[in-house]
Amino acid sequence: MKVAELGEFGLIELLAGIVSSGKPSQPILVGIGDDASVWQTDKANLLATTDALVQGVHFAAEADWTELGWKAMAINLSDIAAMGGIPQYALISLSLPGEIEVEKVRELYWGMKEAGDEFAVVIAGGNITSAPLTIITISLIGMALNEGWLSRSSAKLGEQLAVTGCLGSSAAGLRALSQQLSLEPETMNFLRKAHFKPQPRVSQGQILVQQGVRTAIDISDGLLADLNHLCQSSQVGAKVRVDCLPIHPIVKQLFPQDSIGLALAGGEDYELLFTASPEIIKRVAESLDCPVSIIGEIIEGEGINLIDEQGRPFPQVETGWEHFISRSLYP
Amino acid sequence: MKVAELGEFGLIELLAGIVSSGKPSQPILVGIGDDASVWQTDKANLLATTDALVQGVHFAAEADWTELGWKAMAINLSDIAAMGGIPQYALISLSLPGEIEVEKVRELYWGMKEAGDEFAVVIAGGNITSAPLTIITISLIGMALNEGWLSRSSAKLGEQLAVTGCLGSSAAGLRALSQQLSLEPETMNFLRKAHFKPQPRVSQGQILVQQGVRTAIDISDGLLADLNHLCQSSQVGAKVRVDCLPIHPIVKQLFPQDSIGLALAGGEDYELLFTASPEIIKRVAESLDCPVSIIGEIIEGEGINLIDEQGRPFPQVETGWEHFISRSLYP
Repeated sequence: MKVAELGEFGLIELLAGIVSSGKPSQPILVGIGDDASVWQTDKANLLATTDALVQGVHFAAEADWTELGWKAMAINLSDIAAMGGIPQYALISLSLPGEIEVEKVRELYWGMKEAGDEFAVVIAGGNITSAPLTIITISLIGMALNEGWLSRSSAKLGEQLAVTGCLGSSAAGLRALSQQLSLEPETMNFLRKAHFKPQPRVSQGQILVQQGVRTAIDISDGLLADLNHLCQSSQVGAKVRVDCLPIHPIVKQLFPQDSIGLALAGGEDYELLFTASPEIIKRVAESLDCPVSIIGEIIEGEGINLIDEQGRPFPQVETGWEHFISRSLYP
Repeated sequence: MKVAELGEFGLIELLAGIVSSGKPSQPILVGIGDDASVWQTDKANLLATTDALVQGVHFAAEADWTELGWKAMAINLSDIAAMGGIPQYALISLSLPGEIEVEKVRELYWGMKEAGDEFAVVIAGGNITSAPLTIITISLIGMALNEGWLSRSSAKLGEQLAVTGCLGSSAAGLRALSQQLSLEPETMNFLRKAHFKPQPRVSQGQILVQQGVRTAIDISDGLLADLNHLCQSSQVGAKVRVDCLPIHPIVKQLFPQDSIGLALAGGEDYELLFTASPEIIKRVAESLDCPVSIIGEIIEGEGINLIDEQGRPFPQVETGWEHFISRSLYP
């Protein structure tokens, strides 16, 4: 069987089986299958995560390399945010062709450094190898709060489902750019930033933990795909009110027919999706400096139940990004 | 200017400048430029390193994927060994084409798990992305001993220069395999293992620290190249007696003309090169379970002085592996 037939998540499950066989010699609290790993040290619980951007898969060679550097760091920061942790150190493994201009690599590092500085992360080391194409791999190490961390496997029946910020803006940005739409500079700037300069919800993730939230995931693959991961890990189902999805007015106006599809399956928003009791979510909404929208609830069973404002079933859409499956978000 | 013109080490220097600008918010004890990074936590000093194997650069698609997995883990373990640290957790970032057989990926993970188990390392997490070719990136996190760690920047005038094990066996193995030499199974097995299944000197690195050694580097790029890194970092020169280089009898017999060249510049031996006073090196040699050879000494000035047993200059050879420079070890 080929990797493409098994799919990304089947492959991860298979490999997790190999990796977890036998008795581990180190105390792992959270292993493969969450946004980051957690292990215990004498004083603190450490967090670690790794993510890569591949030329031709995640970005084009003509990309703005400063934005690329920001994004490479931001997607890893978002994984630590999804654990409610404090990001601290980054290792950068860069594979690239010798014909690339040094200036581009310099821009790439400026972008990574800018994001690192903004979130108090030090680039502690790395590795450079030649390769036929550019792949930027970052590993990020951090610390869990004393209060604990967020996991995707602890959602409980009856909890509300909430998200930070707006959904679909990144995918709308990608679409506007690839369709070369002629837009107001301010609109274009909003969309470009949403796609190329996502803001990981680092401080927000920490506040979630402090306010008592225990279940969260970041929305990198799209709301439906990531909610699916959360439901499978927690062995629950979810009901989502599509009319409650937070969608930015620019996105609604620009793509009136598809804005809900973009919000459900567009991906790369790097917002936090979390579950908790209504009381906790109320406290969270008061504490956070960004919008918090209640979009549904955790129910029995499995899978995701999309409904409209009258409670009628909403037609299913593509569920989001999976590696090795060809992407067809924009039919 | 293109990356290929600046070269791997020029690029690293430039990027280290960007990364270290400003005031870091976290306490970094060793940053870019050593085998691993070191930072301080409340209880222990943590170590982290990352290294990648790129298809077409470090391995061919027809490789044995279990051996490949071992090697990917071993090269990272060797970086922690070169700091005299305790490796603990690994993150694996795998980029690969969808057409690859799942069985191969399974073998790859078996190899990584085998090496991890042998050195008490837990695979704590990772990431999988599709890509046009396979790149295996591992980040390894560990702990420094209470006594301290090994650095490449602390060599002192008058110290002796020593290495663990034998040099040139890995490069001899690569050459024997690529020339498809017809050899005794035992000889072939030795060479194959030397190239594909290097044994990182993890416990030996820790003993170096405990015995008072403070300066070491692992020999991944070749003795001359890595000794050069050590001398540049320490701002010293080195004298090397080529007749003192430890070369395995099989390598001497198989490549009598080139065995010294292989030992000096072959690379990928993953032995430890270290400097210390004669007393400390004597203690180390008594404590280690592998050969320790004194091959020269640290001198004033810069660069490496190769001499033969009569003290006459030995002709310079290629200095070893550098990314973005086409390799010409075997003219």
